[in-house]
Amino acid sequence: MRILVTGAAGMIGVKLVQRLSTGHLGSRKITALHLVDVWEPKPVTVPGARVTTEACDLAAPEAIPRWIGERPDVVFHLAAVVSAEAEADFEKGYKVNLDGTFRLLDAIRVQGLAASYRPRFVFASSLAVFGTPLPEVIEDDFPAIPLGSYGTQKAAGELLVNDFSRKGYLDGVSLRLPVICVRPGAPNKAASGFFSSIIREPLTGREAVLPVPETIRAWHASPRAAVGFLIHAASIDLAPLGANRTLNMPGVSASVGDQIEALRRVAGNDAAALIRREHDPAIERLVGSWPKAFHPRRATALEFKAETSFDEIIRIHIEDELRGAART
Amino acid sequence: MRILVTGAAGMIGVKLVQRLSTGHLGSRKITALHLVDVWEPKPVTVPGARVTTEACDLAAPEAIPRWIGERPDVVFHLAAVVSAEAEADFEKGYKVNLDGTFRLLDAIRVQGLAASYRPRFVFASSLAVFGTPLPEVIEDDFPAIPLGSYGTQKAAGELLVNDFSRKGYLDGVSLRLPVICVRPGAPNKAASGFFSSIIREPLTGREAVLPVPETIRAWHASPRAAVGFLIHAASIDLAPLGANRTLNMPGVSASVGDQIEALRRVAGNDAAALIRREHDPAIERLVGSWPKAFHPRRATALEFKAETSFDEIIRIHIEDELRGAART
Repeated sequence: MRILVTGAAGMIGVKLVQRLSTGHLGSRKITALHLVDVWEPKPVTVPGARVTTEACDLAAPEAIPRWIGERPDVVFHLAAVVSAEAEADFEKGYKVNLDGTFRLLDAIRVQGLAASYRPRFVFASSLAVFGTPLPEVIEDDFPAIPLGSYGTQKAAGELLVNDFSRKGYLDGVSLRLPVICVRPGAPNKAASGFFSSIIREPLTGREAVLPVPETIRAWHASPRAAVGFLIHAASIDLAPLGANRTLNMPGVSASVGDQIEALRRVAGNDAAALIRREHDPAIERLVGSWPKAFHPRRATALEFKAETSFDEIIRIHIEDELRGAART
Repeated sequence: MRILVTGAAGMIGVKLVQRLSTGHLGSRKITALHLVDVWEPKPVTVPGARVTTEACDLAAPEAIPRWIGERPDVVFHLAAVVSAEAEADFEKGYKVNLDGTFRLLDAIRVQGLAASYRPRFVFASSLAVFGTPLPEVIEDDFPAIPLGSYGTQKAAGELLVNDFSRKGYLDGVSLRLPVICVRPGAPNKAASGFFSSIIREPLTGREAVLPVPETIRAWHASPRAAVGFLIHAASIDLAPLGANRTLNMPGVSASVGDQIEALRRVAGNDAAALIRREHDPAIERLVGSWPKAFHPRRATALEFKAETSFDEIIRIHIEDELRGAART
């Protein structure tokens, strides 16, 4: 089978490609893997498959018809201008996140005019589609009324995936991913960065800054779980979803206090002592407006699986990023 | 004040322009009125105002920046490829209904870069944003998950109006209009045509075909009420809406049986006897999936007003289209 991955150089993209480098997706053998991102993705070796990489901006999407001309069986569409940037650069956000997604979907439709073609399309959506006021626990039918341009573009993308699927042009699904935690790498400026850094930094003996009260609660899943969602979404029968191809993904609802207690259990008091409180009301206001918990019944019925505790999320980080050993 | 109307030659557009030809919108004097549609709108005389008309397809939207360059204070965006056509011509539907709407909104944003500009933007949306399964009565927070391309494009347009408004580029509102009844003019091929023709034709002594059982129920408002919604939306303070600028409009929930009883009350048994039953399962399936009733609490709080009975809807048709006299 042939696979296209957009956003292949991003955090999730890199891990997805690692997983695909086994040479299989579900029970099917991979024969071609095309990886695109604004920065040229690192090539990987996939036994039995031709791997190609390409630097390309979805905002200048002349290349899209060529990618789709290869008739990939599965398209993982992860590429996006992220939340803060989409808010700061309105034009770029719409060009990449809405127009880019439309062009990708429409290239698939046009490809199908010549000869029958209906690939699986897996779209990485986001909890950012939800704006306040939110209930404590979000049900599957809760409406997506975003409060940011990124969330707006993702919500519109979900509508498009539904419509192109309904018309039979592709077989699509949109996954609203939880907050991905623990993100590997250096601390970044994202408002949500502390959710990861308060775990990641102490595990390697470094101090981390916590800008919000311990009562702040979020919906978490590990990078490994996120890759699992994407692979699962590419492999299963989507017919049970009917016309609504959008799924809230499972996860772990944890307060910052829960996170710290889990860190204490997994890595000891010394690790937890490395968290320094430094209140930032702007960050509290922002992340305090995010979803706290879901009942993702439809995704669970389709056997999408996340971690069941924050302890497990920490242990996965230690296994996948620290070669099994925390350094405290 | 300067006003731009897209879709000015459509049924609602013509009636909106008639209303504007008083020379006022709310308490403000109209100084310029630009009317565009795919067919050149009929010119009207508006005391004290410069009226211009233009034939232009939103699918080839080079003209949009010129319209917006005139810095209209109010934009009524009614132009759309209708439901059946958007379903049959997928490409055209997206070009006009989604891309055209985006370009109009974005031209306003760009116009504001040079000098402060934040016009009122009134977007005609539709009940087609709702797909089954539907509750008997739809609340304001019921999610828009469309089952057609037209509804998808309208739902995406609503998201855009919210986001452009949130960013302060314009002051927008999307009105989900009821089934407009009684439509004037000849019977047409629209699946919903019978809702109007079973009233309109008997009132002038003609036979009408009813393709569905009398139990089929829909959400109705007169053309006069629809124009009232648009004018009201252009005049009021929208700040109470917060970030969600989409409103379900008020209307009358009536079954076909209710419609026929109202016709009998207003125009007599002879009129009602002109309705001939000719069952069409395809039409029944389609209109049977439409919304039956709403609790439009937010719109009602903002004093949007529709008729309160189907009798009133019929009387308005007689006043506005038959010069006050039914001919039975």
